[in-house]
Amino acid sequence: CCLSFSLSIPDPQLREALMQLEASMQTGGQMVLTDAEQRLDALLFKMKQEEMKGEDFPPAMHFFRARHLINNSPIFSLLQKMPKGGALHIHDFSMVAVEWLVKNATYRPNCYMCSTDNRSIRFIFSSQWPKALPHCSPWVLLENLRAKMVNTTELDVSIMGNLTLFTYEDPESVYPSQDVVWDRFEQAFLAVWGLVTYAPVFRDYYYEGLTQFYKDNIMYLELRALLPEIYELDGSTHDIRWTLKTYQDVTKQFTAEHPDFFGARVIFTVHRGVNLTRMVEVVKEAIQLQSDLPDIMAGFDLVGREDSGRPLWYFREALSLPVKKGVTLPFFFHAGETDLEGSDVDQNLLDAILFNTTRIGHGFALLRHPVAKSMSRKRGVAVEVCPISNQVLKLVKDLRNHPAAVLMSENHPVVISSDDPAMFGSSGLSHDFYEAFVGFGGTSSHLGSLKELAMNSIRYSSLTPKQKEKALALWQKKWEKFVSENVF
Amino acid sequence: CCLSFSLSIPDPQLREALMQLEASMQTGGQMVLTDAEQRLDALLFKMKQEEMKGEDFPPAMHFFRARHLINNSPIFSLLQKMPKGGALHIHDFSMVAVEWLVKNATYRPNCYMCSTDNRSIRFIFSSQWPKALPHCSPWVLLENLRAKMVNTTELDVSIMGNLTLFTYEDPESVYPSQDVVWDRFEQAFLAVWGLVTYAPVFRDYYYEGLTQFYKDNIMYLELRALLPEIYELDGSTHDIRWTLKTYQDVTKQFTAEHPDFFGARVIFTVHRGVNLTRMVEVVKEAIQLQSDLPDIMAGFDLVGREDSGRPLWYFREALSLPVKKGVTLPFFFHAGETDLEGSDVDQNLLDAILFNTTRIGHGFALLRHPVAKSMSRKRGVAVEVCPISNQVLKLVKDLRNHPAAVLMSENHPVVISSDDPAMFGSSGLSHDFYEAFVGFGGTSSHLGSLKELAMNSIRYSSLTPKQKEKALALWQKKWEKFVSENVF
Ligand SMILES: [Zn+2]
Ligand SMILES: [Zn+2]
Repeated sequence: CCLSFSLSIPDPQLREALMQLEASMQTGGQMVLTDAEQRLDALLFKMKQEEMKGEDFPPAMHFFRARHLINNSPIFSLLQKMPKGGALHIHDFSMVAVEWLVKNATYRPNCYMCSTDNRSIRFIFSSQWPKALPHCSPWVLLENLRAKMVNTTELDVSIMGNLTLFTYEDPESVYPSQDVVWDRFEQAFLAVWGLVTYAPVFRDYYYEGLTQFYKDNIMYLELRALLPEIYELDGSTHDIRWTLKTYQDVTKQFTAEHPDFFGARVIFTVHRGVNLTRMVEVVKEAIQLQSDLPDIMAGFDLVGREDSGRPLWYFREALSLPVKKGVTLPFFFHAGETDLEGSDVDQNLLDAILFNTTRIGHGFALLRHPVAKSMSRKRGVAVEVCPISNQVLKLVKDLRNHPAAVLMSENHPVVISSDDPAMFGSSGLSHDFYEAFVGFGGTSSHLGSLKELAMNSIRYSSLTPKQKEKALALWQKKWEKFVSENVF
Repeated sequence: CCLSFSLSIPDPQLREALMQLEASMQTGGQMVLTDAEQRLDALLFKMKQEEMKGEDFPPAMHFFRARHLINNSPIFSLLQKMPKGGALHIHDFSMVAVEWLVKNATYRPNCYMCSTDNRSIRFIFSSQWPKALPHCSPWVLLENLRAKMVNTTELDVSIMGNLTLFTYEDPESVYPSQDVVWDRFEQAFLAVWGLVTYAPVFRDYYYEGLTQFYKDNIMYLELRALLPEIYELDGSTHDIRWTLKTYQDVTKQFTAEHPDFFGARVIFTVHRGVNLTRMVEVVKEAIQLQSDLPDIMAGFDLVGREDSGRPLWYFREALSLPVKKGVTLPFFFHAGETDLEGSDVDQNLLDAILFNTTRIGHGFALLRHPVAKSMSRKRGVAVEVCPISNQVLKLVKDLRNHPAAVLMSENHPVVISSDDPAMFGSSGLSHDFYEAFVGFGGTSSHLGSLKELAMNSIRYSSLTPKQKEKALALWQKKWEKFVSENVF
């Protein structure tokens, strides 16, 4: 009797061991830290405790309200300086802060604007006066409009507001539901479209995007890109191969000018609203591009709101083509960006894995799918976690409840990304790293977690093993510099 | 080459098998349903699809806003009629809808009321004019006050509003933070206190509580009770044993009058704000009561907000007493009702398990503690899930993100309870069952899930194996009647 009784008083050593075991299971939990790293970690721990004392805890707030708090946080400054590795889930036309689009793109000659019936705007560059758009006001030439104004600030601010979801108003009132926020998201996207698909802007926009990510201490990018037909001033257009080629050229130029930037690759994306016939065509195009330009082309994905689009299984014929033809087309599917449990769309997670996806975009619903979750872990299919995106698009309010907090407590393969930073008013990856570091892990996550997240972004990239080795070595050098410069 | 390629096209049969596997892993996933149950399940599935089509999805809304929608839901009517088994996590002074307190208790003679500095109220019954309370207005005798009024409705409504958190105003504005809502929670609790600790009200309140749960088709109760000293009109008080004995007497009376009600047991609770010396005393008292009145006494627990109280480990000396003395005192600890990950309080989950807790109250943070989670599963330590409580106390906004959705997808041992139904404006267990059934599982959960949840509430109760067998047989009869009456 007495043995079993005495076993029931918790043994402090066993308790300590179990706590240690749990701590070691998390992302970065088995990372061995150098002396300098340990000192930086102690500093970080103090900062985090300070941060959690405050009345307003940023990860519990909507990012639009929390941004100025985060921007003033010493943890955030440190995260900005930290080499974060690669950004693996970024969309083509939301790379660059909208200030640049307004101040640079819309100030170029021949830029026309009209206002749509549903309070959005559209742009076009044209050497001739463009034909009127349906459901849009008559075009105005922006240089004429601005010439008549004493002060163009108000106009510029109003244009800017149309190109992003970010607002200083109460985000809960402005975006009361998922439907509203997705609708505004798509409108902002269409507003940006006419600017960024104009060839000269297109090149510069991408170059500026690389610059902004580089400045945020990101060394590598995998860009989900729609590869649209890019237009010139005379209305002529380039084909999709030209677009991909341009990405390759600009990347080469940027990398040549910034030798410590590792590069970028493109994941060709198509909207999930297309029908099966079109999808078959697109997959064939993708296969061709993959075989013609394998250096820049990383693979294929579908985009657009999962809840209102067609599930992956609907496209199974198209998505089986590469395997049937015996050719390579890596997939990087968005899946489980939903809270409609048990619906057709909710099967995307499992189907993404069955179609051998390389990574999962979002995977917000993964915890509710134990089979898909265990397959993702066993096969090393990393989840691309975009905390701010999920919050702004209203999947979760308090980021401490984000499912990735659980994934990270088990060291499930994850990377942190920012999805559409310009749309959400975030920059590079630092804001999302802040939410993940401070919000997901509470005081349990530490410098080892950050280190592992950064390394994951190279480990789970589409690079070849040899390239990964090179990229990791480059990152390691940056990391050591970062640690030595920030430890006192 | 070709074999491995052909393996990569998802096999529809494998896909189907994996989906089935996942479905079978959830709570109730392996329940075999009779023909009648299958027909009821089909009906439920249709109802749920209807429910998910609506513009407002109740589990995504604050319960205070969603209540009228839920009350009109056909799923809710069915859940009210469904025999739900036992309610295992209910607090003593929040059992009875506040209407009863106002309409019954405050209309009794000798009822005095005062208004506190911080916009709450206090009550006392007394044969003489009571002594003034600090920070409270002079006492008024309610019968005098009401006698002077033409219409007492407004007064009654205002009293009611002070006894509950429920409000028709915007809950986000009224309760902007966890601190505010916990403060109002404690004030409402103190307002109720003077009413329910008056001996005649105390008996009737508990009897009324059993009645309300019985009407909600609950057949068994485990009540977390503070066992305060109950007072009489002359100011004399009864000891804690009298209070426990009274629970036993009223339970016996109620069960005699309602032979299909199985009974109730009491979990003695103490506020976690006490110091160690006091805790040692209380645990000794609990041991004594457990040995003297083992039929009514189920065990011991600590209550009050975890985040501001002392962690279990602080009380380890007191909590080790039963084992050291070689006596039985089952624990039913609240633990992990927090989002302060990595704090001392966040260790309560592990410590509760190390102290051999029989169940875990809330366990909201369990997913972030893989070691504690796996111990809870292996040892069959069920989690008492209280969805509405967690939402009102601001741990989670959209109940689809509640961690129990994940626990249920893995058939982790869980029971559904309502914590403080009167405080939250819910009744019995039906509102919480609605949130769990519609919110957690989406369309994946089904009648088998409900059946398993009801059976869990007996399986994981504090009853002896023999009693459980008897209770399950009684429940089974009720269940069959319910199915046959609701299937067409
Ligand atoms: Zn995306
Ligand atoms: Zn409780």
